[in-house]
Amino acid sequence: MQRSILFAMIGACVTLAPAPADEGMWTFDNPPTQLIQEKYHFTLTKEWLDHVRLSSVRLNDGGSGSFVSAHGLLLTNHHVARGQLQKNSTPQHDYVRDGFYARTPEQEMKSPDIEADVLMSTEDVTPRIEKAISQAKTPEEQFAARRKVIAEIERESLQKTGLRSDVVTLYQGGAYWLYRYKKYTDLRLVFAPEQQAAYFGGDFDNFTYPRYDLDMAFFRVYENGRPIDTPNYLKWNVKGAADEELVFTSGNPGSTSRQDTFAQLEMQRDTFLPTILNVLQDRNRVLEAFSKASPTHAEQADSDIFRNANSIKAIGGELTGLKNPAVMEIKRLQEENFRQAVKSKPALEAQYGQAWDEIAAVERKAAGRVKENFYHNMDSQLAGIAKTIVEYVAEIRKPDGARLSGYHDAQLDSLRFDLFSPAPIYRDMEIARISGALELDLKAMGPNDPFLKIVLHGQSPQQAAAALVNGTKLEDPAVRKKLVNGGEAAVAQSADSMIVLARALDPMRRELVKWTEDNVTSVEERAGEELGRARFAVYGKTIYPDATFTLRLSYGQVKGYPYNGTKAPPKTTFFGLYDRAASFDNREPFNLTARYQQARTKLDLATPVDFVTTNDIVGGNSGSPVINAKGELVGLIFDGNIESLVGDYVYDIETNRSVAVHTGGMMEALRKVYGADRLVAELFGQ
Amino acid sequence: MQRSILFAMIGACVTLAPAPADEGMWTFDNPPTQLIQEKYHFTLTKEWLDHVRLSSVRLNDGGSGSFVSAHGLLLTNHHVARGQLQKNSTPQHDYVRDGFYARTPEQEMKSPDIEADVLMSTEDVTPRIEKAISQAKTPEEQFAARRKVIAEIERESLQKTGLRSDVVTLYQGGAYWLYRYKKYTDLRLVFAPEQQAAYFGGDFDNFTYPRYDLDMAFFRVYENGRPIDTPNYLKWNVKGAADEELVFTSGNPGSTSRQDTFAQLEMQRDTFLPTILNVLQDRNRVLEAFSKASPTHAEQADSDIFRNANSIKAIGGELTGLKNPAVMEIKRLQEENFRQAVKSKPALEAQYGQAWDEIAAVERKAAGRVKENFYHNMDSQLAGIAKTIVEYVAEIRKPDGARLSGYHDAQLDSLRFDLFSPAPIYRDMEIARISGALELDLKAMGPNDPFLKIVLHGQSPQQAAAALVNGTKLEDPAVRKKLVNGGEAAVAQSADSMIVLARALDPMRRELVKWTEDNVTSVEERAGEELGRARFAVYGKTIYPDATFTLRLSYGQVKGYPYNGTKAPPKTTFFGLYDRAASFDNREPFNLTARYQQARTKLDLATPVDFVTTNDIVGGNSGSPVINAKGELVGLIFDGNIESLVGDYVYDIETNRSVAVHTGGMMEALRKVYGADRLVAELFGQ
Repeated sequence: MQRSILFAMIGACVTLAPAPADEGMWTFDNPPTQLIQEKYHFTLTKEWLDHVRLSSVRLNDGGSGSFVSAHGLLLTNHHVARGQLQKNSTPQHDYVRDGFYARTPEQEMKSPDIEADVLMSTEDVTPRIEKAISQAKTPEEQFAARRKVIAEIERESLQKTGLRSDVVTLYQGGAYWLYRYKKYTDLRLVFAPEQQAAYFGGDFDNFTYPRYDLDMAFFRVYENGRPIDTPNYLKWNVKGAADEELVFTSGNPGSTSRQDTFAQLEMQRDTFLPTILNVLQDRNRVLEAFSKASPTHAEQADSDIFRNANSIKAIGGELTGLKNPAVMEIKRLQEENFRQAVKSKPALEAQYGQAWDEIAAVERKAAGRVKENFYHNMDSQLAGIAKTIVEYVAEIRKPDGARLSGYHDAQLDSLRFDLFSPAPIYRDMEIARISGALELDLKAMGPNDPFLKIVLHGQSPQQAAAALVNGTKLEDPAVRKKLVNGGEAAVAQSADSMIVLARALDPMRRELVKWTEDNVTSVEERAGEELGRARFAVYGKTIYPDATFTLRLSYGQVKGYPYNGTKAPPKTTFFGLYDRAASFDNREPFNLTARYQQARTKLDLATPVDFVTTNDIVGGNSGSPVINAKGELVGLIFDGNIESLVGDYVYDIETNRSVAVHTGGMMEALRKVYGADRLVAELFGQ
Repeated sequence: MQRSILFAMIGACVTLAPAPADEGMWTFDNPPTQLIQEKYHFTLTKEWLDHVRLSSVRLNDGGSGSFVSAHGLLLTNHHVARGQLQKNSTPQHDYVRDGFYARTPEQEMKSPDIEADVLMSTEDVTPRIEKAISQAKTPEEQFAARRKVIAEIERESLQKTGLRSDVVTLYQGGAYWLYRYKKYTDLRLVFAPEQQAAYFGGDFDNFTYPRYDLDMAFFRVYENGRPIDTPNYLKWNVKGAADEELVFTSGNPGSTSRQDTFAQLEMQRDTFLPTILNVLQDRNRVLEAFSKASPTHAEQADSDIFRNANSIKAIGGELTGLKNPAVMEIKRLQEENFRQAVKSKPALEAQYGQAWDEIAAVERKAAGRVKENFYHNMDSQLAGIAKTIVEYVAEIRKPDGARLSGYHDAQLDSLRFDLFSPAPIYRDMEIARISGALELDLKAMGPNDPFLKIVLHGQSPQQAAAALVNGTKLEDPAVRKKLVNGGEAAVAQSADSMIVLARALDPMRRELVKWTEDNVTSVEERAGEELGRARFAVYGKTIYPDATFTLRLSYGQVKGYPYNGTKAPPKTTFFGLYDRAASFDNREPFNLTARYQQARTKLDLATPVDFVTTNDIVGGNSGSPVINAKGELVGLIFDGNIESLVGDYVYDIETNRSVAVHTGGMMEALRKVYGADRLVAELFGQ
C-alpha cells in the first residue's frame, strides 16, 4: 500500500515542501529509477548503471574514487591520498606540503599500501543464509550458523572467480548480498596539489560551504607493472553541471544511523550530545588558558586544542541539526508512518510492535548515566595509561570472548603500539588538564560524587592533580612495559600514584561498563535488529539500506540553499578564493601559496572551483565522482556543508548539501597553476 | 558599589568571555572614557569629541552622515539618499537606477526636502523640568506641566540662539537635556552610485555579512546659495582600519528596547514573535501559490511577497537572537544585578521593587490574547478599507483625545491619502488572501472562534472570501469617499458586503483595543517608567540611555566573528563582489552593472569593499562615519549582520556586528569605476 516511507513522508508534508527529497544511498541492484523519472524525467538504463559502477572505485584508505581515462587514471581527494603522500615523503620531499606531479610516466610514484576495489557483480544470497539460520535454534547457534555460511559463500566465490568476495548485510539483516570486487594493489601517484590548495581554510572551513578547495589527487592503477586499460571511465566534462542540473554520485558511504528511533534522537539531542559538547568545550577552555601562559605551553597544547575544536564543531553541527524542528519533524513523520504500517499488520505488530517502546525505555535509563560516562574522566594521558595497564593485565588472562572491548586479540598490537609510544607527555599540561577536569566534575556531580571522593581524597582539584602527576613515573615507556610484563602481581604491588588510583577506580568503571551492556547496548541492538527486519517487511526495497561502505548511487541536483540570512550560491569561483585570502590578509589557514599568488593574472577568475548538490552522502563518499545524466564527470565530492552533519541520522533537502570540486576549476588549475600538460592531455585527448 | 551593569555582567561572565563588551550608544556629554582607556588604552579628549560631534550630521530622512571636506561635502548612505534620488528622477532620468555624478559645481542637484542638523551644544535641563513637575499633583497635571516647561525651554533657546532647540528625554525620564542644532536645508546631490552597486545582493543580502555593497552618497551643504566652509570635517583615510583596530561611530540610533525586562523578552520569544512569524509565513505561502498560477498573478503579488519576505527575515532574525541562550543569559545577568541593587536600597525597593513582577504578570495576560491580535485578520486590502471607514466615521465625531490611535487630527491627512488612493486592488488576489487567512484562523483558533463565526456565517473560507469580494464596491475610491462623506448614517445604511462585515466586527475589535490598553499597555508604560527611574537611581550615568535618534558615540574594533561553522572575515574585497556575481551566473539581485563588468580589469580587486566592527549600532545609524583614533574617516556604516537584529533588545559582542563600507573601496570605485575626479580631488586635495 505504502510505496515507501519517502513517499509517505512527502504526502504528509506536501503543503510544506512540494519538492520530493533527493534522499537515499541506493544499491546498484535497486536504483531509484522511478523517483528519478518522476522528479527529473530521466531514465536510468542498465548500460548507464553498469558504466558508472565499473568506473567507480572503493579505496581501502576509507574513501572512493573513479577512473577518468582509458589508461587507469584514477581521481580521488587529496585528503584520501594524504596517507600515501605522507608515507612517501622524506626529509627532502614533503609531498603533503608541496604536492606532487609526475611529469613523465617513469616519475609516477608507487604508493605503499592503498587498494582499489571495483565492484564487478552482486548477487542476492539471502535465501541461502536464511536457510542456514533457520536450522539453528538459539540466538548463539544462529549467530554461528550465519558466520559459517557467510564464510562458505565468500570462499566458494573467491575460488570460482578469483575476485575479492564479501557478503554484505543490508537492511539490518533484511537482505544479504555477495559483492565481488576486482582488486588492484599497485596504485601510483600522478598528481596532488599542495595541501594548502586542497585544504584552503583548514579546520575552520572544514565541514562548511562556501568553499574554495581543490581537494583532488590522481593515481594511476597498474597491473603487472603496466597501466591498466579500461573502457570504463568517466569522460571529463570541463563545463561541469549547471544550476539545478540533475547529478549523481557513485561512491561508498561509510555508515549511517538513519534507522535510529525518534527516542534515540531525542536522547542524543537532549542529553548525550549536550553533555559531551559541554565537556569538550570545558576541556578546550582549560587547554586554552594553559596555552596562553607561555609559547612553550602553546606549542604543547596546540594539536589537542585543534582536535578538540574540530570535535566541538562536528558534534555542535549534529546537535544544531537535531535541534532544528524541521529536521526532527521529518524523523517524526517517518516513524509515525512506519509504526502505523506495522500496526496495520497484526503479525508484524505482535513480533515487532514493542521495539520502539523498549528502546525509548532504555534511552531514559541510559540518559541517567550519561554524565558519569563523561565526567568521570580526568582528561589525562597518564591516567589513561594507568587505566589501560590495570585493565590489560586482568583482561589478557581471560578467553578472548570474555574480555572488555579493546582487549581482544585482534586489537592488542595497536593497543601495545599506543601504550608504549615514546611520545612526550607534558607534566604541567597534565596537571592543568586533571585539575580542570576535576573542577568540571565537581561542578557537574557535586562533592559527594563517588568518583571524586576516590580521586580527591579531601584535597582540592589542584592539589590532587599535582600529587597524582608528581607521584607517577608512567611517562617513561620502560616503566609501562615493566608493569605490563610483570602482570597482575606487579600492578597490584605498584605504589605509582596513577596505578594506585586506577586500581581504586577499576571496580566502579567495570560496573558502569557491565550496567551499560546489560541494560542499554544489548536491548538497543536486539530491538534495533527487530526494527530493521520490520522495516524491510513493510517497505522492502522501496527504501535504501543504511550505509555499509559499499557502492551506492545517490541522485540530486546542483542547488544553493538558505544560509546566513541569505542564499548560498550553487558554486564558488576563483574570485572567491582570492577574496577569502585577502579578507584575512593572507593569514593561515587562509593563505595562498606562492603558486597561486603568481597564477592570479593567468587564471580566469570566474572559473568555478567548488559547488553544492542535494545528493545524499556521508563520510566514505570522499572522492566520489559527481556524474551528469550523460555519464560524464562534472565534479568530485569532498565534503558536506555544516548543515549536513546531522546526515548520519536524517536527510533534510532544505539545507543538507554535498560539496564537490568542479571539473572546470580542477582543469584551470592543472593547466595554469601546475602546468600539468601530460595529465591535461590525457584527460582531454582520449 | 556596582560601577555599572556592564561591569557587573562582565564580572559574572568573566570565566566565559574575558573581553569586555563594546556595548553602548553614549551621549557626547558622558562618553565611556574609562571603558575605552581600560580596553583600548586610548584617551578621549574634549577636542576629539568636539571635532567628531561637529563633523557629524543628523538627516531628517532617518539617517546620519558626516562632513568629509572643508567645503560642506557630506557623506551618507545611498539608501538614506534614496528618497531624494527618487524625488529628483524624471521619466528621462532614473537616478535611483543609474546613479548621479555632478561633474561641475553647477550640476550639483538641489534636493527637495532633506534637512541636516549639526549638534552645536547640549545642556542639562533636568532640574528645571523636575521643579516644574514637582508642583503638579496628579499624573495628568504632571504630564501637562512637563509639556509646558519643555515648550518654554525650547522656545526660549530658539529665541536666544536661533538654533533648532529640542528637549530630549533620556533614561526614561531620568534626565532631560536641551539639544541645540545648526540646521541646514539646502543640500545638493554630488554623487550616488547606481542602486545595484549600493544594494548588491538586494533583499537577500540585506541584514547580512559578508557583503559587497558601496552604499554611499555625497551631498554638499549650501547656505545662502553657496557651499558652506567648515573646519569640522573628517579626513578621508584611504587605508581604512586594520583588523582589531579601535574605531568609533558617531550617529543617531533611532530607538532601542534595551530596558525591556526578561519577562518581556520571554513573551517576545515564546509567543509574540513566533505567532507573527507563523502568520507572515502563512500569508506568504498563500501569495506564492497565487503567484504561481499565471504571470499576471506573479506581477500582482510580487511586491507583497517581497515585503513579507523581508519582514519574515527581520522578525526571524530577532527570534533567532532571542532563542540564543547566550543572548538571554546576558539579559538575565543584567536584570539579576539590577534587581539586587534595587533590593539593597530599601527606599528604591519600596518604590520600584514591584515593577518587574507587575510586568511579568501583564506579559502572561497579554500572551493569552496574542493569537486574536494576529489571526483575527483577513489580510485583505478591501476589508482593511472597510474597517477604516467604519471606524473613521465614528471616531471623527469625538474630541481628539478620546479617539482611537490612528484617528487623531494630526494623522488624518495621511489617513485620507491612503484611504482614497486609486492604487489598483486585485479581486482574485483578495479572494486568495482572504480564504488563506480564514483557513489559518480556522486551524489556529478552531471553528468556534467568534471572529470566524461572524465572517464565515456557515460558509467555507473560499465561499466566504468570494462572497465578500464579489459583494463590495470598495475598490472604487469614489465609493469610499461617498461613504466617508456620508458619515455614520451612510455607513450604517450601507449594504456593501465589506462594510456590513466591518460593522459586525467593530464591537469585537474595540473590546480588544480597550482590553489591551487597560490591562497591558498602561501597566507596561507605568512600570517601564518606574524601572527607568530605578535604573537611573542605581547606575546614574555609568550606563547609556536607550536610543532616541539623537547623537551618540559608540566604540569597538574591526573584528570577524564565528559564522556558518567557520569565521567571517573582518573585511571583504572586490574579489568577493565578482565571486558572488559569478556564483549566481550574474543573475539578479547578484548582477553586476555594465560599469562594473567593464571596470574589472582596472580595479585592484584586493581593495576592501566592506568591513565589520563590534560597534553597537541600530537603525538610524545608517550613514554614520566610522572614525579611527586620529579622528579620520575609515568607513561608512550601512547595516548590521543577521545576528545584530536582536540588538534592539540585547547586545552580544560574540556575534553582533555593524557593517560598513570601506574608505578604500569607495575611493577605488570613485576613481576607476566612476571617474569622479573632481570629487576625488576634493577628498584628497584638502
